[in-house]
Amino acid sequence: MPDILKELEPVFYPKSIAVIGASADESKNGSQFLGALLQAGYRSSLYGVGRGGGTSHGLPLYPDLRSVPGPVEYVIISVPREAVLEVIDDCAAKGVKAVQLFTAGFRESGTEIGRRLEAELVAKARQAGIRVIGPNCIGVYNPSMRISYGPLARVSAPGHIGFISQSGGHGGRLIEHGLDRGVDLSKLVSFGNGADLDSADFLEYFGADPETKIIGAYLEGLGRPRRFLALAREISPHKPIVIWKGGRTDVGAEAAASHTGALRSSYAVWQGAMRQASVIPAESIEDLADMFVALESIGPAPVRSVAVISGIGGGGGGESVLGSDAFAGAGFQVPRFSDATRRAIEVLLPAVGTILRNPLDLGGVTPRPAALESVIKLVFADERIDMVVVQEHFQRLLRNLTPARVREMNSVMISAWRAQSKPLAVVAPAWATTEASMEVERALREAGVAVFRSFDAAARSFARASAYLARRGPA
Amino acid sequence: MPDILKELEPVFYPKSIAVIGASADESKNGSQFLGALLQAGYRSSLYGVGRGGGTSHGLPLYPDLRSVPGPVEYVIISVPREAVLEVIDDCAAKGVKAVQLFTAGFRESGTEIGRRLEAELVAKARQAGIRVIGPNCIGVYNPSMRISYGPLARVSAPGHIGFISQSGGHGGRLIEHGLDRGVDLSKLVSFGNGADLDSADFLEYFGADPETKIIGAYLEGLGRPRRFLALAREISPHKPIVIWKGGRTDVGAEAAASHTGALRSSYAVWQGAMRQASVIPAESIEDLADMFVALESIGPAPVRSVAVISGIGGGGGGESVLGSDAFAGAGFQVPRFSDATRRAIEVLLPAVGTILRNPLDLGGVTPRPAALESVIKLVFADERIDMVVVQEHFQRLLRNLTPARVREMNSVMISAWRAQSKPLAVVAPAWATTEASMEVERALREAGVAVFRSFDAAARSFARASAYLARRGPA
Repeated sequence: MPDILKELEPVFYPKSIAVIGASADESKNGSQFLGALLQAGYRSSLYGVGRGGGTSHGLPLYPDLRSVPGPVEYVIISVPREAVLEVIDDCAAKGVKAVQLFTAGFRESGTEIGRRLEAELVAKARQAGIRVIGPNCIGVYNPSMRISYGPLARVSAPGHIGFISQSGGHGGRLIEHGLDRGVDLSKLVSFGNGADLDSADFLEYFGADPETKIIGAYLEGLGRPRRFLALAREISPHKPIVIWKGGRTDVGAEAAASHTGALRSSYAVWQGAMRQASVIPAESIEDLADMFVALESIGPAPVRSVAVISGIGGGGGGESVLGSDAFAGAGFQVPRFSDATRRAIEVLLPAVGTILRNPLDLGGVTPRPAALESVIKLVFADERIDMVVVQEHFQRLLRNLTPARVREMNSVMISAWRAQSKPLAVVAPAWATTEASMEVERALREAGVAVFRSFDAAARSFARASAYLARRGPA
Repeated sequence: MPDILKELEPVFYPKSIAVIGASADESKNGSQFLGALLQAGYRSSLYGVGRGGGTSHGLPLYPDLRSVPGPVEYVIISVPREAVLEVIDDCAAKGVKAVQLFTAGFRESGTEIGRRLEAELVAKARQAGIRVIGPNCIGVYNPSMRISYGPLARVSAPGHIGFISQSGGHGGRLIEHGLDRGVDLSKLVSFGNGADLDSADFLEYFGADPETKIIGAYLEGLGRPRRFLALAREISPHKPIVIWKGGRTDVGAEAAASHTGALRSSYAVWQGAMRQASVIPAESIEDLADMFVALESIGPAPVRSVAVISGIGGGGGGESVLGSDAFAGAGFQVPRFSDATRRAIEVLLPAVGTILRNPLDLGGVTPRPAALESVIKLVFADERIDMVVVQEHFQRLLRNLTPARVREMNSVMISAWRAQSKPLAVVAPAWATTEASMEVERALREAGVAVFRSFDAAARSFARASAYLARRGPA
């Protein structure tokens, strides 16, 4: 096992956890961490610690860490900053391996006392051989261990995306966004001020972690830029790395300094360094998730040419123009079909109200699953086409057809796709979703189909994924 | 009344409508147009015409237009293209003022017969003094007349946005998107091939229409570029014009030619011409709606500086960085608050876990409506600030608070906003919405608050709206 995996095993796979700062008042942050771990179903030993005693979420609270009966490997700290150093002494006495601190008011506060406290905290922990995550962070999320993220009890199935977040809030939003759209993480860690363990350590960890195939990050700055970039260069030929940089404007960088004490750097310099390390850029939570979906779907070779199919359920003319603009604008070919493909499609579909070329407008005909299946098979079989993009307005279809018919249509699309190896993306615009429309979407995601909210999001994501694969070369 | 209003009165305010091509089979396009008009509640005389006779949606069907008992001002045609010329003869005999043709297979088909038929159709109609909308279009939507759009029966309250669409599908999606997010249209017209009435005619109409304050369009090309641009230059100082151009890439332009027979033009040339006419560019349905929301909310003066407020319900640090990057990146100032504002806020909010500057992170505290109201009033009152942007994760708030508490919070925000005159925008990220979250959103929209799905969408829309106002100068 690589050193870093062994070193951080107590962080991601702790055999026991104590939450310090829990209380009978279940609205307190410490109590919420404890309650979420219980609700998520963390399976090993879990202890609550709170000066006031009593119980929290049905668990007895110990007055301090030393009173906890069994060994404790990992500690979540949510106490006022004045109490933190004493808690670290307790952790040392107890033989704790690692701590995470929700407690804030350290370096990021911009005050002298905050800076001093952070330095003392780290010195004390290092002396006792305790690794520190934070302070000023939400900490670790690990679905395979049923370790929930802060107060958020929802935990997805274990996935293959490892995520490093310098913002606790963005980490939580990525988890929730992923739950909504079937983007599952292997692990996530929010590290706040990164006083001890920082983004470079976690990058190294995810580079070695066999559960992680794709690495993502939200970063506001780098504590050790050389180390981070050297690791990124080493890892990215094997695992794609996607990074959203917060604080790219002066005002944003100032906000980042208040947020996590991140040092300011020029965004142009950042971009250049990341490009050299083959890091894929992203711009928001949704954009990160779009990139993960594209990277999980794209297969081993870059996509150079796409077929755009619209008009399922009607109204596809304008959409075919939009789809073409989005993919051509992102650098893809939207080539003519081969003569054989075109002729075969002409047999299947009427000539009026349709556009029987690429982009293909299926026209105002109510979708017939058999015809749809044949058309999609033909398009996948055309050797000029690397990937198929289908637009589907789930809500409109559900208004005009029975849910069973919509399911049937997607089933034939999925089976046509599975019979071969090129990627399929579905574009499903929506401002307001319904339970029924989300069920249609979930079924596609569970089958492994890439789903986006716009042609533009699909095109930009597959363009970046393809550029990454082209640069990396055959795996 | 300007000539154009009089000329197109039978188009937008018809005293009687006949739908030709209806049938007892209610799944046919003609029957769907008829059914939607009935369901929408069109209040004047409505007739169904279908060779087969019988009834459709409970209305008796006349075998031809000449058999309809009363006068008919406007006719919706959905018959095979071979029957179109005969129908125009009937319209002439009946004294019809205007027709719209859903029928396709004309110029856009790229065939000689299609081109010839379209020319004959227009010649015949002109001879009889009949104006033509289409062919190959969905036609007119007018909420104030309860005239529904094609087969779509949903009609919003009458709004102030007039929309011209070269794509029937995009027109329908804009109406539905607007219904979802409270963006109401005065009128919309999809004109397909524009064989007679075209984008320039409708631009002139909306320029004169007292019900229309903002004009939007989806266009794939211009039939009469000089006329259109002259009108745009004349109208845009009084009413903002927002245009989404479809077919900006070569492939997209080819698709547009198949779609509506639009002529190809260089997108760079298009952009230059539109810029000179002070036309505001847009890039998608969502982007058009974002622009309409910004233009309806912005007030008379450009916005130059914004306050960004995040952290309602917690987790605002990363969001404050994101909001700053979005607005600073779009050219806005995100200035420091005045000393007086900052000191007053420091009295209201705790120092730890918050960021008490601009961008303002309200911190991990459960929102207290009274404190929120005071803070927002203080920020609006700061003379350095032109506009306030608040981020709210409706779904997360609804999970952590009672719906009544969320409503109360938004009510105090709305009342703080209404007590002064600067614009307020709410950013509400969502991949999947719920009925409860949409209710929160609707309440904000009904109060007149601008709602966006991302900081970036809000920033880019207000930046374009501000640039328009700055260029136009005081109204």
